[in-house]
Amino acid sequence: MILRLDRVGIALPPPSDPDPPGAAAVQELMGGKFGEMSTWLNYTFQSFNFRARQGARPFYDLLCSIATEEFGHVELVAATINTMLTGASPTDDGRAPDAALAELKGIGNPQHFLAGGQGALPQNSQGRPWNGDYVFSSGDLVEDLTHNFFLETGARNNKLKVYEMVDHPAARALTGYLLVRGGVHRVAYARAFENLTGADLTKLFPTPRIPTEKIPECKPHIERGDHLRLYRFSPEDYRELAAVFNGPHPETDEDLEVVDEAPEGALANDLPAQPAVFAPDYAPEEIAEIAKKLRQSAGLPKEPTGAVA
Amino acid sequence: MILRLDRVGIALPPPSDPDPPGAAAVQELMGGKFGEMSTWLNYTFQSFNFRARQGARPFYDLLCSIATEEFGHVELVAATINTMLTGASPTDDGRAPDAALAELKGIGNPQHFLAGGQGALPQNSQGRPWNGDYVFSSGDLVEDLTHNFFLETGARNNKLKVYEMVDHPAARALTGYLLVRGGVHRVAYARAFENLTGADLTKLFPTPRIPTEKIPECKPHIERGDHLRLYRFSPEDYRELAAVFNGPHPETDEDLEVVDEAPEGALANDLPAQPAVFAPDYAPEEIAEIAKKLRQSAGLPKEPTGAVA
Amino acid sequence: MILRLDRVGIALPPPSDPDPPGAAAVQELMGGKFGEMSTWLNYTFQSFNFRARQGARPFYDLLCSIATEEFGHVELVAATINTMLTGASPTDDGRAPDAALAELKGIGNPQHFLAGGQGALPQNSQGRPWNGDYVFSSGDLVEDLTHNFFLETGARNNKLKVYEMVDHPAARALTGYLLVRGGVHRVAYARAFENLTGADLTKLFPTPRIPTEKIPECKPHIERGDHLRLYRFSPEDYRELAAVFNGPHPETDEDLEVVDEAPEGALANDLPAQPAVFAPDYAPEEIAEIAKKLRQSAGLPKEPTGAVA
Amino acid sequence: MILRLDRVGIALPPPSDPDPPGAAAVQELMGGKFGEMSTWLNYTFQSFNFRARQGARPFYDLLCSIATEEFGHVELVAATINTMLTGASPTDDGRAPDAALAELKGIGNPQHFLAGGQGALPQNSQGRPWNGDYVFSSGDLVEDLTHNFFLETGARNNKLKVYEMVDHPAARALTGYLLVRGGVHRVAYARAFENLTGADLTKLFPTPRIPTEKIPECKPHIERGDHLRLYRFSPEDYRELAAVFNGPHPETDEDLEVVDEAPEGALANDLPAQPAVFAPDYAPEEIAEIAKKLRQSAGLPKEPTGAVA
Amino acid sequence: MILRLDRVGIALPPPSDPDPPGAAAVQELMGGKFGEMSTWLNYTFQSFNFRARQGARPFYDLLCSIATEEFGHVELVAATINTMLTGASPTDDGRAPDAALAELKGIGNPQHFLAGGQGALPQNSQGRPWNGDYVFSSGDLVEDLTHNFFLETGARNNKLKVYEMVDHPAARALTGYLLVRGGVHRVAYARAFENLTGADLTKLFPTPRIPTEKIPECKPHIERGDHLRLYRFSPEDYRELAAVFNGPHPETDEDLEVVDEAPEGALANDLPAQPAVFAPDYAPEEIAEIAKKLRQSAGLPKEPTGAVA
Amino acid sequence: MILRLDRVGIALPPPSDPDPPGAAAVQELMGGKFGEMSTWLNYTFQSFNFRARQGARPFYDLLCSIATEEFGHVELVAATINTMLTGASPTDDGRAPDAALAELKGIGNPQHFLAGGQGALPQNSQGRPWNGDYVFSSGDLVEDLTHNFFLETGARNNKLKVYEMVDHPAARALTGYLLVRGGVHRVAYARAFENLTGADLTKLFPTPRIPTEKIPECKPHIERGDHLRLYRFSPEDYRELAAVFNGPHPETDEDLEVVDEAPEGALANDLPAQPAVFAPDYAPEEIAEIAKKLRQSAGLPKEPTGAVA
Repeated sequence: MILRLDRVGIALPPPSDPDPPGAAAVQELMGGKFGEMSTWLNYTFQSFNFRARQGARPFYDLLCSIATEEFGHVELVAATINTMLTGASPTDDGRAPDAALAELKGIGNPQHFLAGGQGALPQNSQGRPWNGDYVFSSGDLVEDLTHNFFLETGARNNKLKVYEMVDHPAARALTGYLLVRGGVHRVAYARAFENLTGADLTKLFPTPRIPTEKIPECKPHIERGDHLRLYRFSPEDYRELAAVFNGPHPETDEDLEVVDEAPEGALANDLPAQPAVFAPDYAPEEIAEIAKKLRQSAGLPKEPTGAVA
Repeated sequence: MILRLDRVGIALPPPSDPDPPGAAAVQELMGGKFGEMSTWLNYTFQSFNFRARQGARPFYDLLCSIATEEFGHVELVAATINTMLTGASPTDDGRAPDAALAELKGIGNPQHFLAGGQGALPQNSQGRPWNGDYVFSSGDLVEDLTHNFFLETGARNNKLKVYEMVDHPAARALTGYLLVRGGVHRVAYARAFENLTGADLTKLFPTPRIPTEKIPECKPHIERGDHLRLYRFSPEDYRELAAVFNGPHPETDEDLEVVDEAPEGALANDLPAQPAVFAPDYAPEEIAEIAKKLRQSAGLPKEPTGAVA
Repeated sequence: MILRLDRVGIALPPPSDPDPPGAAAVQELMGGKFGEMSTWLNYTFQSFNFRARQGARPFYDLLCSIATEEFGHVELVAATINTMLTGASPTDDGRAPDAALAELKGIGNPQHFLAGGQGALPQNSQGRPWNGDYVFSSGDLVEDLTHNFFLETGARNNKLKVYEMVDHPAARALTGYLLVRGGVHRVAYARAFENLTGADLTKLFPTPRIPTEKIPECKPHIERGDHLRLYRFSPEDYRELAAVFNGPHPETDEDLEVVDEAPEGALANDLPAQPAVFAPDYAPEEIAEIAKKLRQSAGLPKEPTGAVA
Repeated sequence: MILRLDRVGIALPPPSDPDPPGAAAVQELMGGKFGEMSTWLNYTFQSFNFRARQGARPFYDLLCSIATEEFGHVELVAATINTMLTGASPTDDGRAPDAALAELKGIGNPQHFLAGGQGALPQNSQGRPWNGDYVFSSGDLVEDLTHNFFLETGARNNKLKVYEMVDHPAARALTGYLLVRGGVHRVAYARAFENLTGADLTKLFPTPRIPTEKIPECKPHIERGDHLRLYRFSPEDYRELAAVFNGPHPETDEDLEVVDEAPEGALANDLPAQPAVFAPDYAPEEIAEIAKKLRQSAGLPKEPTGAVA
Repeated sequence: MILRLDRVGIALPPPSDPDPPGAAAVQELMGGKFGEMSTWLNYTFQSFNFRARQGARPFYDLLCSIATEEFGHVELVAATINTMLTGASPTDDGRAPDAALAELKGIGNPQHFLAGGQGALPQNSQGRPWNGDYVFSSGDLVEDLTHNFFLETGARNNKLKVYEMVDHPAARALTGYLLVRGGVHRVAYARAFENLTGADLTKLFPTPRIPTEKIPECKPHIERGDHLRLYRFSPEDYRELAAVFNGPHPETDEDLEVVDEAPEGALANDLPAQPAVFAPDYAPEEIAEIAKKLRQSAGLPKEPTGAVA
Repeated sequence: MILRLDRVGIALPPPSDPDPPGAAAVQELMGGKFGEMSTWLNYTFQSFNFRARQGARPFYDLLCSIATEEFGHVELVAATINTMLTGASPTDDGRAPDAALAELKGIGNPQHFLAGGQGALPQNSQGRPWNGDYVFSSGDLVEDLTHNFFLETGARNNKLKVYEMVDHPAARALTGYLLVRGGVHRVAYARAFENLTGADLTKLFPTPRIPTEKIPECKPHIERGDHLRLYRFSPEDYRELAAVFNGPHPETDEDLEVVDEAPEGALANDLPAQPAVFAPDYAPEEIAEIAKKLRQSAGLPKEPTGAVA
């Protein structure tokens, strides 16, 4: 079971210039073979299928913790895509139902507008849906770890290239963060590997062999030490991370560190309605009206109780 | 972000007679168009893409809470499949690498043995991978709710038929539970619908029109009132469920109830190794040995700190 | 069995400015999850699989009639795409085999030119093929109707957005017509629903909640009353439509009406050859020459007997 | 546009011993690459995309007529699968919701029971959905005809093998009929080919090279001359078939013949409800009850007006 | 088994102006239904599955030889795509990791940059992966030949259209060559056909009916007689080609000719590194350094022993 | 370019008891994510896309050589499947067209009989087609090698499990051989890795951690030293293998060895016709008759010139 927090991993910048082709490219980090859905669901299925887990507890706890963090990465990719698509259709009510989407014809992923409501889709940069064939869960611990190390390597490659292709502020905030956190996961799997087999993968850092310090958007996260920390995303469980995640970071030689709680994160932006695509409605204010009344009859506070950025 | 608990929704029976063809059928509830991955990821993506959420807070909170519970359902389906496959290959070490899987040739989903480690796969009952085309996230709140109501209707249909096809104790425990909880979600979406539009779907309960009380494995959950409760799966957030989820249950006329925390759940079974498929290893005891040493050098307790059933 | 008429649902405008990216977008209404192939083949398969149909005759007749009309919608979408692609490649024979398609590189759906002959493909707006997973045919009448109501809701959403994105005259003629006719089908399924279960879906009209009268291209069809009529597309059969399709229209309160024959429709345009893509030939006049001779030796009239617009 | 007749191509035998694995095999003729959905939708799309059709009228009319007949073939395949699945689950109401489908675990296509209502699915014999990649519509008439000739060749091969694998009476009635009619279409395309290019394909009959007269279930259709006839499936249109379809049959040397109307066909069986899979309901008699009342209030005859076998 | 030569079919021009949308279009000739992967793998699988091959030796030898040549065609398509993508990202090291790919956003196949290293992918012009459903291998020799003739017809159509769409020098060199060689294969299958059945397909040349001599890039290959030659791609085997491949060419009436060895081909270009996409590395010179040392310690010559153009 | 040899890697046993479900399982080694098509086409595409290859010559040569050997593995898997399916349908001519395939209904992969001619298909053990998404070709040499090492690890896992599931003599001969040769490739990639980065993967042998000497069918190949040899599959090229492939074998500590030519291999079996599925014909002797005449008129020897086992 999981609990959900109404917070996201980092504060994303608010919507600025919309960037539909950029949003289409960022989809590779969502539904691509090496996107966050893949890391998330690979580790999650591996944890579901983990046999004799009590005997292998440190490895099981590591896997579960990383899997749990990955949910937050998928969430951030989705928030980024939504941010980049905000404002792409006119909010000037006068135009709809006229040619409100005409300028988007032939631009970006057409389903962002025709199927979805200017939001994220479980697809890659070509509009192909993520599928379960991207999950590897052999049950063999050494193999699953081999896979995960490779998966994080490929993911780093794809993040770097999306970074290079898309310089929208939200995309850059995302990729800078994902590169640092994915780096931690890569180290974690390498350490698990070493502990289990003795094989030393230290020399494989970084791959692709571009020094991480060359990437400006990674710096703030490195400066606050987030490249060294593995968080325990659970109120009570998964207490054996430190048995695997320890020793020096292969790139910086600083000590790795287990943090005994989830990171604080940030409030999500409440992205504005896009009435041209009926998200959340052609006349979104009516929903707010209804919600207000419902809140009242349920004896809840007059104002929404949730918090947004 | 999410937090993960090392507990599952209900206590599943321990492995008994293995049932590979049954496990293959239960995969429909995992990766089928109407399986738990679909409910989970539909609601999750809809929550990611929810625009103007502050104004629609009760609906947003409802969606997030149900999405969160669905993770636990996927987890339970996986645990069920693992349970049903346990013991399907011989654990008598002497036989491997010989024809340890010979009796499984032509039986069930071949990838349960050839690709996976007698564990769950993100596939349906035909071995076809779940894919992102199964996610509907239009951004239009009324449409998304229409979809979700239909999705839960189809899910109930598939659960009932899996119930009829597979009478393995783990499968029955699963389907009995899922039917009751899916029923709650169906009611929740119907109530959201009604609140938003005025349309009354009460008369559509139950669909398929088989009285729920005829299903013995549902009874314990109904008796403890779980068919009436919507849980708030979050330490602090999503506090406006009661604004939508209230009034009488359409089938029993009892009052619906919001529970302000996650259900207690149960400890998961630690399913035994299946060395013939190398899960978690050809010689699983070696991993346990290594884990022990790692735990020690990290200053952790001698015995695993996690709990299993 | 079916009979085919050499007429289409409405008169489409003749080719004007070609619009390849628009044609690519219109493909969503062809092969998208909510496109016309989906409505057509969903209802058709449900009708094939209808058990105990004699006892449920009014519902069966309704389903068959709507399924039959949907063929004509697919036909119209195809005609629209063909119209929009006409003239996109030069017909000036001098250029071929030179770079006749060079200006189309990177524009629209590349298979419109590389695989097809500037014609419609069974694909969506991303070039992904329609597939049988889009068909829902559970055999449970209430569920199939729930699905169909949801399907028409999603279809309306997609038509509206294609309307907003593509203002080519042929696309607008298409979407205006499809919106009205899809609206009728949505009402029909809601009425079937209500008759079968008592659930009242009246309040769900319209979804998306944009008043239909705001769409100019819908008006002519509304003015001639086509938003109220269900046609019986059969010489002799399916005579029980009126048992389900009756009462007031949920949006306009006017009386619904069953028409005891197919609509008159219109002649199709005979779209010109596109020799650069060899459709129907590099030298199309040779085919006409051969056809003429064949007609003569078969004792048929000198001029083609078929009629085109 | 099309009109639909409440009749099928031939009278199928009523349900006898259910044959789920046979029904799974027959799905190859439904949704396989060479199944009837493929022939149907290939010719249908080619007819939609036919440019300069007036000049090529005899070929256009031929294509449209064959496409139209193919709808009836898909319909018959569906009816066959439904027939073969009838009775596979118990109709003894007492058993449901118990293990009513237990004996079907691991047998045939699991989605016949878990997703559908013991009915046909748009899938092949492996449970893979039919998809739009199976449609070839190049716009080049000679190429489309080349494709169609090859498609009918492959279809004949698959029909023969399904014939050999499945000897259920309904399957044999189906394959006997489809072999004869597919043979006619193969001849028709060969004749079109020859007329257009001069290439003589006569020597390619039959392929696979098994003499058609060796197949007993083909004989009745051959005896009544149905291997020689091309029907004009339209009240008024497509009048130039005879310009292409004429001359001797390549296998029997008898004269080919154009029939100026649709064949009479037969009434469909009204297959009984399968309440264990809720088709059309858990308590199907309630639907009949409602239908009766609806018919009455609409002033329709007391008894269903449609006819079934 | 195969042996590989470090040479390609023809000398391709070196990289010039990069053309990402052109490269995306050329992918149709790689992974499209009628691309070179299809011809290659169709003939290869048919040769693997060829039963009673000794008795049908001339046909088996023909199939194997054509299959073998097709590997070289796939190789050339890949080389073309790589050539066209060379230089699309800046090689000026100063820019990376900055927005080195920004100008490629929304251009061409995004996976050329985000997933691959500006290289070829097993996908079509829409970015959809090639898949095994494109292989036809019925085992029936006449049918397989019917298929292959149709496949080559469709391939010619697609090559012609790619020719018309993409006038990049590498693409034109490729399509000119493939058209000539595909023409030979088309003749070969027609001859096999005729020998086996007596059916004369001579009149079907050319299809599409554009005279091959109108295509300038085909001319050099025609002038050196390559439209008449079938090569025996094997040191010792497949010696019976001449039993099938003989007689006059259907378009030019010149005599067909079997060449008893592989063509000489040409050296491949050694395409430069693209460090912005890390191909083969962010700092490619380091690999060269390592290679040098490895070569030395292995006692190999100081300079690379392989040859490139 | 490649040359093809009419020989296979090892002598397979002749057909014995047919084993259709076993053949269906062996398909995992053909078209599964970790099957031989995947290893083959991954390395082949990586070699096509290898930039700056002259500078990285030892790595390029290694990749090309392994890719080339993999063709032979695919060929052997195909031969194994054909062998296992031989005799599954009756060859007693009298039965066809009767129920010749009736006993195969519901057994194994239905397309082995309905689509193919009892031959291999490019599909996995579930009948799902191999697809291009299984190819990883990032262009980054370290990443591609990471992938290949992981791919070989997964392939070893799948081979071991197919070994355990299928004990048909042909399958065992195949898996014993593939395990040894895949092991060599795994070592080769590990050595390349180490040479390029310094990372030592020695401790990862074997994975899965079952000692290779426990597998009897591997022994003959180990005894003749084939676990130590990398072959140069080219008449003249790829001469720098020894720069990478050298040093001790990680499992046995024996010296690795480069062999400067292809292995001798063995003659393939000429598998008998299966007339019930028309492979290669309903009356295969007619083809032999024709072939004889063709050979004669071409002045070839009276008897087939090719050699079979």
